[in-house]
Amino acid sequence: MALVRLIEYPQASPEVRSVYDDIMKTRGVDWINNFWKALANDPKELARIWANVKRVMAPGALDPLVKEMIYVAVSATNGCEYCTHSHTAAARKKGMSDAMLMELLAVVGLANETNRLANGLRVEVDPQFK
Amino acid sequence: MALVRLIEYPQASPEVRSVYDDIMKTRGVDWINNFWKALANDPKELARIWANVKRVMAPGALDPLVKEMIYVAVSATNGCEYCTHSHTAAARKKGMSDAMLMELLAVVGLANETNRLANGLRVEVDPQFK
Amino acid sequence: MALVRLIEYPQASPEVRSVYDDIMKTRGVDWINNFWKALANDPKELARIWANVKRVMAPGALDPLVKEMIYVAVSATNGCEYCTHSHTAAARKKGMSDAMLMELLAVVGLANETNRLANGLRVEVDPQFK
Amino acid sequence: MALVRLIEYPQASPEVRSVYDDIMKTRGVDWINNFWKALANDPKELARIWANVKRVMAPGALDPLVKEMIYVAVSATNGCEYCTHSHTAAARKKGMSDAMLMELLAVVGLANETNRLANGLRVEVDPQFK
Amino acid sequence: MALVRLIEYPQASPEVRSVYDDIMKTRGVDWINNFWKALANDPKELARIWANVKRVMAPGALDPLVKEMIYVAVSATNGCEYCTHSHTAAARKKGMSDAMLMELLAVVGLANETNRLANGLRVEVDPQFK
Amino acid sequence: MALVRLIEYPQASPEVRSVYDDIMKTRGVDWINNFWKALANDPKELARIWANVKRVMAPGALDPLVKEMIYVAVSATNGCEYCTHSHTAAARKKGMSDAMLMELLAVVGLANETNRLANGLRVEVDPQFK
Repeated sequence: MALVRLIEYPQASPEVRSVYDDIMKTRGVDWINNFWKALANDPKELARIWANVKRVMAPGALDPLVKEMIYVAVSATNGCEYCTHSHTAAARKKGMSDAMLMELLAVVGLANETNRLANGLRVEVDPQFK
Repeated sequence: MALVRLIEYPQASPEVRSVYDDIMKTRGVDWINNFWKALANDPKELARIWANVKRVMAPGALDPLVKEMIYVAVSATNGCEYCTHSHTAAARKKGMSDAMLMELLAVVGLANETNRLANGLRVEVDPQFK
Repeated sequence: MALVRLIEYPQASPEVRSVYDDIMKTRGVDWINNFWKALANDPKELARIWANVKRVMAPGALDPLVKEMIYVAVSATNGCEYCTHSHTAAARKKGMSDAMLMELLAVVGLANETNRLANGLRVEVDPQFK
Repeated sequence: MALVRLIEYPQASPEVRSVYDDIMKTRGVDWINNFWKALANDPKELARIWANVKRVMAPGALDPLVKEMIYVAVSATNGCEYCTHSHTAAARKKGMSDAMLMELLAVVGLANETNRLANGLRVEVDPQFK
Repeated sequence: MALVRLIEYPQASPEVRSVYDDIMKTRGVDWINNFWKALANDPKELARIWANVKRVMAPGALDPLVKEMIYVAVSATNGCEYCTHSHTAAARKKGMSDAMLMELLAVVGLANETNRLANGLRVEVDPQFK
Repeated sequence: MALVRLIEYPQASPEVRSVYDDIMKTRGVDWINNFWKALANDPKELARIWANVKRVMAPGALDPLVKEMIYVAVSATNGCEYCTHSHTAAARKKGMSDAMLMELLAVVGLANETNRLANGLRVEVDPQFK
């Protein structure tokens, strides 16, 4: 159970509904996931986070599927259950196959391994990399 | 200063040199970076990690640049200085521009932010994501 | 299910009961939460951790509510489910409102974001900060 | 050395200078720290992060010093060198004494300890906390 | 529910069955745990990870119980629920008592605490340690 | 440079000197490392942490070298530079060879890898482990 109540659409203020409407329109879905319903306890915070997600995840120098997979990589590294589920679902919607997910996680696992080898051995950065 | 001595090529055993040779050949470079020189204190461990890196980072369901960028995303999340430098250099060699790096880090930053919002609010996973 | 059995008051040794009694008295509650019941498998460890919590969380240069909110911030950053629940409850008891919780988590989220931007860009510390 | 070049004021575009000016004015300082100079490689990202910092760190339900100390708590937990230096400096400017810093870190240390005890023992959340 | 389906023995390909057989034989058990059933969605990845576990966890300069306890220490630090359960079970099978588990976690907790004190105070490494 | 000044023995109060003396006596050394000199800014905190270290790291159900290696494993996982240096030095003093260090880090690396595979695939804990 979340630490704050979830604000459902019918009970939401016009300010919150307006963000909910934009989320559904932007994503082409007809429901709001719990993350936003929890954030809606602070309508300004809800609007702030949604504006950031919309801006950062928009197409740019990287394509949206790559961005979504990077989101999954970070969420798996941090062990965030909610985010791993929601962003894996989002990445699949954008075209990630099971084979791509398995390969993505293989890289995540390896990076977490060698990060600790480098940190544990306190390897100094080669001047060539700087 | 690393916690173990760095094994330079001239002092390396044939077993270690053989891995060093394969690293240089595979990457098209003529030098060995410190990470491998530290691992070489245990030649079997050096061979094991290199075999894993070669296998996981090879082209597959994901392209090598995307994989390298995922490596950077994990390394930045974990705050591994050595890995951030070495894998950013590798990603640049494979085509990552400054604009792509900035956008990659924007996603990494945002994911780390929303991971904590979801964890801090203890949001339950929506059944639709499962 | 916890990895060790939970030691309930009626089954507890006098040494454990004495710590349980002090926890209930200090906090003004009439029950013991699972964290302590698990630690009680090692009565000396139970006593050690409780003594530390009592000492560190006592009023001092910082007020107890601020300390409790810092505890929540760390727990959310680490993704500790148990600790996020228990310390959010404790902070609420000391006066934290929903608005304060939302604002606290906004800071936690932002700090986690900019921590990774600084780490990912490997920004050097300005001499003015040292 | 940072992974991107630092954009100094004289070389900055009008868009970047406008953010730099607002940072200096808001904080009452006459210099820009390296974090912003690195972000300025992507002017839109610079503007986005600054707008978020300005909004989240403004007085609200929590006072600015408490917010700054929460920032330090998260940065110390994540081991971010840059952020620990810059936000400790900011907290001191807002009134944090050495005694307050020591006490803040005592809470951070303790929370990191008990987070792992709860996670390692896999303690279930008491129904009373939900 | 896992993000990929679990591959049960009867439905597994000969390549996957061969790894499953080796896991059961090596560990002296007659069932396969979910971790491997999830990895089996990519048979090469399954084989790669199993080969690494078999190699790294084999007796060497450290005894197998010590290695298993180190695995538990890392899993508790990272808050990995699955790994904490599975490796605690494995360590118990190799002889870890409740008293040893409690003491192991006391060290893990303390290390996580002093790691943050050192990071938060930005203590410089003494030349004597280098 | 540390965020607080380092308290040297000649400038220390009797309360601090008494802890310094006990550290040197207990460890059989004639110098104090920077960690304690930083903590000494709060003499009560210095005494508290030292008492905990002394108690937790004493021989018990686990031998002191195993405990010290667990400390290294946690420090490498968290990327704490100071702690990795100081506890590797301590473990070496208690008998850890280079071969043992390399093997310890191999386990740490592997655990960090499989922790993320389990978290990324959201594998459910097998009932047999509970």
